[in-house]
Amino acid sequence: MNVKSTTFPLVNPLSKPILYSYWRSSCSWRVRIALNLKEIPYDIKPISLIKSGGEQHCNEYREVNPMEQVPALQIDGHTLIESVAIMHYLEETRPQRPLLPQDVHKRAKVREIVEIICSGIQPLQNLIVLIHVGEEKKKEWAQHWITRGFRAVEKALSTSAGKYCVGDEISMADCCLVPQVFNARRFHVDLRPYPIILRIDRELEANPAFRAAHPSNQPDCPPELPNK
Amino acid sequence: MNVKSTTFPLVNPLSKPILYSYWRSSCSWRVRIALNLKEIPYDIKPISLIKSGGEQHCNEYREVNPMEQVPALQIDGHTLIESVAIMHYLEETRPQRPLLPQDVHKRAKVREIVEIICSGIQPLQNLIVLIHVGEEKKKEWAQHWITRGFRAVEKALSTSAGKYCVGDEISMADCCLVPQVFNARRFHVDLRPYPIILRIDRELEANPAFRAAHPSNQPDCPPELPNK
Repeated sequence: MNVKSTTFPLVNPLSKPILYSYWRSSCSWRVRIALNLKEIPYDIKPISLIKSGGEQHCNEYREVNPMEQVPALQIDGHTLIESVAIMHYLEETRPQRPLLPQDVHKRAKVREIVEIICSGIQPLQNLIVLIHVGEEKKKEWAQHWITRGFRAVEKALSTSAGKYCVGDEISMADCCLVPQVFNARRFHVDLRPYPIILRIDRELEANPAFRAAHPSNQPDCPPELPNK
Repeated sequence: MNVKSTTFPLVNPLSKPILYSYWRSSCSWRVRIALNLKEIPYDIKPISLIKSGGEQHCNEYREVNPMEQVPALQIDGHTLIESVAIMHYLEETRPQRPLLPQDVHKRAKVREIVEIICSGIQPLQNLIVLIHVGEEKKKEWAQHWITRGFRAVEKALSTSAGKYCVGDEISMADCCLVPQVFNARRFHVDLRPYPIILRIDRELEANPAFRAAHPSNQPDCPPELPNK
């Protein structure tokens, strides 16, 4: 499918899934990991959150995602938005390589960690909020909310973690944790008080599904980026 | 079970579920609605977010919920936190009166609306963030994020709503929408541009499960509250 700006809202149910993504967006990153883990082929349609005041605000893209943010996933003839909802959809339609444990209490624990990150941390430090907070205060603001959330994540992990966030199987919680650790580093959060978070992040660094989803491996990552 | 401050972390699997709740907390309210819809008997343990600088910050409660916020639900011998994770747990262990549709695309739509509200709106206007924003700016700040989110919710509802948020069955999306509309009114958001949101909110106003969960019907609602 040839995606032009004027054909944004058209979704062909037989097409390869298209992920509207921005290389550094942690919410896009979560979905990239989930797609990779489940080995679902997809094309990336980059949406720059920077260029021209943010391509996510253009009229055509607003039809794709009325929240004017990434990601959005066109799949099975539908356009899905919101990263956790998308991961659940993938889990329910593509059960291979599960992102949720079978045990109902472990599932609750996965969703708890997901929600601490996706409702308790990321929304408070995303680009659109930091623009509103202002250049001068944004670093301190982001550090404050990430630190508060990571204290709770570390505490949750102290009883749930095995090799990964919940036991020894990779789950949605891991898909959310790794991008959030990246953001924490961007804002120079002191991560030493969170040894379990750091250990899991290191463990997942070499995983091919996580590696391929990393911002530095995205088609829209600027070539001049250091440490690429 | 007699809950004293020193026995906070003890959970008896045979006890009636205990919900740590604050009357005006929209996240507690979501869970109260879900419990009522599923007709699960529960006791309320009020946690005042105001008294003594916030009871959610005391050492005992931090053991219950390391995010130091409500709700937390003690049920089946476990302590669960994070409202959407709790609703999913209730759905998976008490399938009566489902909170998610059978159809996988409708489930995605429910979770999309849930996430717009629970990640895109509520975290940005909750008490702890508004304290950080400051008295002078907090009303404008809350209005800004609620308005942005409600535009997206209204757009989502334009294709999904029947009598309720997704079709004609009450779902998790409705459990999240009603408390968010209440918050919007508290911050004097102009709701006229959102006729579908307003219609669904009115529809649910008289529902006994929603009525019983309303802040004005909570044991910790101050008796002097107007419009009780």
